Amino acid sequence: MKYCSTCGQPVEQRIPEGDNRHRYVCISCETIHYQNPRIVAGTVPVWEGRILLCRRAIEPRYGYWTLPAGFMENAETTIEAAARETREEALAEVDIQGLYSIIDVPHINQVHMFYRATLKDGLFGAGEESLESKLFEPGDIPWDEISFPTVRKTLELFLVDMKSDAYNVHVTDIRHPMAKKA
Amino acid sequence: MKYCSTCGQPVEQRIPEGDNRHRYVCISCETIHYQNPRIVAGTVPVWEGRILLCRRAIEPRYGYWTLPAGFMENAETTIEAAARETREEALAEVDIQGLYSIIDVPHINQVHMFYRATLKDGLFGAGEESLESKLFEPGDIPWDEISFPTVRKTLELFLVDMKSDAYNVHVTDIRHPMAKKA
Ligand SMILES: [Zn+2]
Ligand SMILES: [Zn+2]
Repeated sequence: MKYCSTCGQPVEQRIPEGDNRHRYVCISCETIHYQNPRIVAGTVPVWEGRILLCRRAIEPRYGYWTLPAGFMENAETTIEAAARETREEALAEVDIQGLYSIIDVPHINQVHMFYRATLKDGLFGAGEESLESKLFEPGDIPWDEISFPTVRKTLELFLVDMKSDAYNVHVTDIRHPMAKKA
Repeated sequence: MKYCSTCGQPVEQRIPEGDNRHRYVCISCETIHYQNPRIVAGTVPVWEGRILLCRRAIEPRYGYWTLPAGFMENAETTIEAAARETREEALAEVDIQGLYSIIDVPHINQVHMFYRATLKDGLFGAGEESLESKLFEPGDIPWDEISFPTVRKTLELFLVDMKSDAYNVHVTDIRHPMAKKA
């Protein structure tokens, strides 16, 4: 951030009065521009004991397998965001079963949330951001080609819970060993 | 948003190629400025069967009672944010027991997350944004002076779960009847 989105004049980084963190503050209109983490919402879509994964048609991680997930938009709920991303990436309609994982990724200012879901009718396909979608037996998950650590972590937890058919909500985080300070 | 935070030139609202939503796009450098929901993180702090509430010293809802909560910052986890807000508003150190509620508030582009917590040592006070903090017996919650719907909802759920000492994660939403479209 270099310029004020309210008035177009330059911003500077300083600690505003009554605050304790550096913020971008406009040198002209004094608007404080806060920056906050973003939510990535997705699902673990299941059909007849198999898990639906999408192979990414976009960078980063082109060609790798992922659970359908993406940035939550304004004016929607986390459940709506998770279902929308599943629709967009896997062309699949789902019934949301419950919250499954919340994984904080503080070094990239993100919170990933996955909901358990079942396909409504078993139908799926490849959305614009996917090369293909495919149902995987638990034993056939392509572990060497998983796109992101939060997807891997969620799948690892899910496969364990599948065995006992008892799904808890998992709250965890993934920290980068070389994380830079904000 | 009126100006590009990257180059300082005006932005316009349009649907970028490959997208399906109106975004702020710079007319000069073409940067797309996405806007996403923000997370409010807080705790339900408990000590010897009583719940700690803070009376707000700031607007909105000056003088009303709230659970300690506030906007999650970059480079922290949701648990760290919840504990930090409790430290700042109630001068209390807590042990986080588990996720308790996730309440989507889509008409204001927020997701509120509350964690169950216990005071480490029973100590608390009034931070800069609080007039006072106080432990309430479940039967003495000041329902007519609760600050926000998400706090009320979380307290209502919590009092029910307290009776059975069985705390589930609750995912729900609060929608404004007159919500304007984003
Ligand atoms: Zn300005
Ligand atoms: Zn620009």
